[in-house]
Amino acid sequence: MIQAGANVLSEREPDAPVVGRAAQAAATRQQIIETAQRLFAARGFQATSLQAIADEMGLTKAAVYYHFRTKAQLLHASLDFAVEEMTVLLDEVAGMTSRQERLDAYAVGWVDFLVRHRELGTMLLHDPEIRAASIYAENDGRRRRVLRVLFGDSPTPTERMAYVMCVWMLEGLGELTDLADEDLRATLLLTARGLLALPDQPGARR
Amino acid sequence: MIQAGANVLSEREPDAPVVGRAAQAAATRQQIIETAQRLFAARGFQATSLQAIADEMGLTKAAVYYHFRTKAQLLHASLDFAVEEMTVLLDEVAGMTSRQERLDAYAVGWVDFLVRHRELGTMLLHDPEIRAASIYAENDGRRRRVLRVLFGDSPTPTERMAYVMCVWMLEGLGELTDLADEDLRATLLLTARGLLALPDQPGARR
Repeated sequence: MIQAGANVLSEREPDAPVVGRAAQAAATRQQIIETAQRLFAARGFQATSLQAIADEMGLTKAAVYYHFRTKAQLLHASLDFAVEEMTVLLDEVAGMTSRQERLDAYAVGWVDFLVRHRELGTMLLHDPEIRAASIYAENDGRRRRVLRVLFGDSPTPTERMAYVMCVWMLEGLGELTDLADEDLRATLLLTARGLLALPDQPGARR
Repeated sequence: MIQAGANVLSEREPDAPVVGRAAQAAATRQQIIETAQRLFAARGFQATSLQAIADEMGLTKAAVYYHFRTKAQLLHASLDFAVEEMTVLLDEVAGMTSRQERLDAYAVGWVDFLVRHRELGTMLLHDPEIRAASIYAENDGRRRRVLRVLFGDSPTPTERMAYVMCVWMLEGLGELTDLADEDLRATLLLTARGLLALPDQPGARR
């Protein structure tokens, strides 16, 4: 079953160096997650089967099943992946000494995340069932860490609201499906900077 | 059954002038809606029965049933009520000639609405089933009207995002349940003004 994944990879990347089976499996797993996100967003969670995901990737259903036994597992994996990316960003931001630098790096990193995973917003918007299990159900410890990294030990109500509204930008993505990635990024940066009370970048469109 | 509602009203307002039955019924209906919103927020939609709402108000279940046959009807009524209030606000704002004046009036009116209905945010946050039927499922015509009133015929992506994020402030209320109404209002005004690119009010806290 790993072979099936490897075949797909070698078709897509004919000049890729030979990699180990574990790396191939990890790459296939990641591709399954990305395909699932795209199909969940386009067709809805309910209407997307593991078979449809396999078909889209040119894999057998068994190959998908090797990585994910259920759609719910696949959904959680895609959300885990998002949480991991945000943890990496937060670790970077936490190392910065000036508040301005931290807020700016967070705004840029969060907007990059939103553009990279723009399908996620559409998915969340259209599938109320997904919301319940979504990254909003994040544990309180993580929420507190973001607030502490950005604003220090005693965030004001306005700072807390600014952070929460940044998280909700994920839902706002559903409004901007007509924009190309670059325009989406410029728009979201203005929104994030407005929320975090950061000055606009020179030359940014309003 | 209207008598039961009238009794409750006369207990609460001993000095109220004698009003017609229709007005009393309308007042009772409104009180049922407000009680339901409060209980839905505190206990969740699933866990709140029509009987519990009746008990809370000192009414018989039949008196509640006279106005609302099902909990779903009651939920829709409370959301209809919200939509009506926002229509009144938008009619006011639409009559203003300067853009700055319109955005400012909308920010203040929307924040007043959020503070007045702060239970709504908690309710939405805790009950994923409610979200599906919620005011986010507003028709596209209403959304377009708000955008046109605020920003004119061709809103920019940033303006569209600003409006959507203002709507999502409803969800952000769940973060600020510890604040008194006045502090909540000051915080939300800063958030709304940040989103709509309005200057802070003099003396407002950041």
